[in-house]
Amino acid sequence: MSEYTLHCFAQSGNAYKVALMLELSGADWTPQWVDFFNGATRTPEFRADVNEMGEIPVLDHAGRKLSQSGVILDYLVERLGTFGWTNDDDRREILRWVLFDNHKLTSYIATLRFLRFIMKSGETEVTKWLEGRARAALAVLDAHLDGRSFVVGETPTIADLSLCGYLFWPDEIGIELNRYPHIVRWLDRLKALPGWRHPYDLMPGHPLPAA
Amino acid sequence: MSEYTLHCFAQSGNAYKVALMLELSGADWTPQWVDFFNGATRTPEFRADVNEMGEIPVLDHAGRKLSQSGVILDYLVERLGTFGWTNDDDRREILRWVLFDNHKLTSYIATLRFLRFIMKSGETEVTKWLEGRARAALAVLDAHLDGRSFVVGETPTIADLSLCGYLFWPDEIGIELNRYPHIVRWLDRLKALPGWRHPYDLMPGHPLPAA
Repeated sequence: MSEYTLHCFAQSGNAYKVALMLELSGADWTPQWVDFFNGATRTPEFRADVNEMGEIPVLDHAGRKLSQSGVILDYLVERLGTFGWTNDDDRREILRWVLFDNHKLTSYIATLRFLRFIMKSGETEVTKWLEGRARAALAVLDAHLDGRSFVVGETPTIADLSLCGYLFWPDEIGIELNRYPHIVRWLDRLKALPGWRHPYDLMPGHPLPAA
Repeated sequence: MSEYTLHCFAQSGNAYKVALMLELSGADWTPQWVDFFNGATRTPEFRADVNEMGEIPVLDHAGRKLSQSGVILDYLVERLGTFGWTNDDDRREILRWVLFDNHKLTSYIATLRFLRFIMKSGETEVTKWLEGRARAALAVLDAHLDGRSFVVGETPTIADLSLCGYLFWPDEIGIELNRYPHIVRWLDRLKALPGWRHPYDLMPGHPLPAA
């Protein structure tokens, strides 16, 4: 049995944030596929035994079950000694971008992709509204990356791993990233990290069966 | 001059999370009103000098400018010694709920209130969709509070202060909280804390001028 077990599925960018951390850090880990699309995360049993929030990722480690990607990344920094900080100001700056990601970027972009790509909703008032919110967040990140190699400091941290979670799927989100050139170059830097893999190559469940 | 200056406005539940922390902790603080409704947080000057994310709250303290309510609350735990944790597992459990708040509760509920109450959007596909997301998050929180006095442990922490940020405005959100009885009783417990004040009594800018 691996040291770390990650409850996940290939289409989850939130799970990818953690999977990428484990993989790039050379951790001994195994992905455990969760049948999200048939409701597995929203059963009473899952809520009682795995995560009351009804969500993945969940990381099993040393008898702990951790949820929320931002918490798991913080935990793994401590365990693995990778993608972290060297002082408290950097720790807070990293947390600031992890919170921005959760509140303003992933919150809208993941949902936009879900509606467009998974639910095949077509263009609606909701997708139009979500795209506006997502573009506002992308513009903030793009401006921040102007003149920077990574989000905080000179090396990649969990802030980068969190913010990039959904951004290797621009076609599925339906937002052309060329308008955000600093983001494009930053994603290229992340792809060049030794061991980088696309979410569909890192977690099980791709492709989705035909509906 | 006060020790802490909080850039804020009365209608911001995200600013309220920090204002309430400062007030309940007896900190020496002053609110500094930001003219959000006339775009003050989105000017190039604000982004350059105060917060590149174009958002409040921002806390000025000892030469630092901190943003993202979750970061500021973490910082204030360290400075003030209040509403924090006694061990690392509790610290992570608190962070888990702060992230849930940002990603799943405030992200949708604050926006729903903004559309309905500030923008007078009326009922649209977007408000309907946001209400569904907000109700899913409220149900998770309500179930968690069943049998608990506070979100983590036996005393209030920054997890409570974060999650309650918008919930003293049910009328403005347009969601009747009676369906979430554990949330109602928890909010009553927070209101009973010595020094508690409603957001409109704690920060400047209420009421809004007539449009």
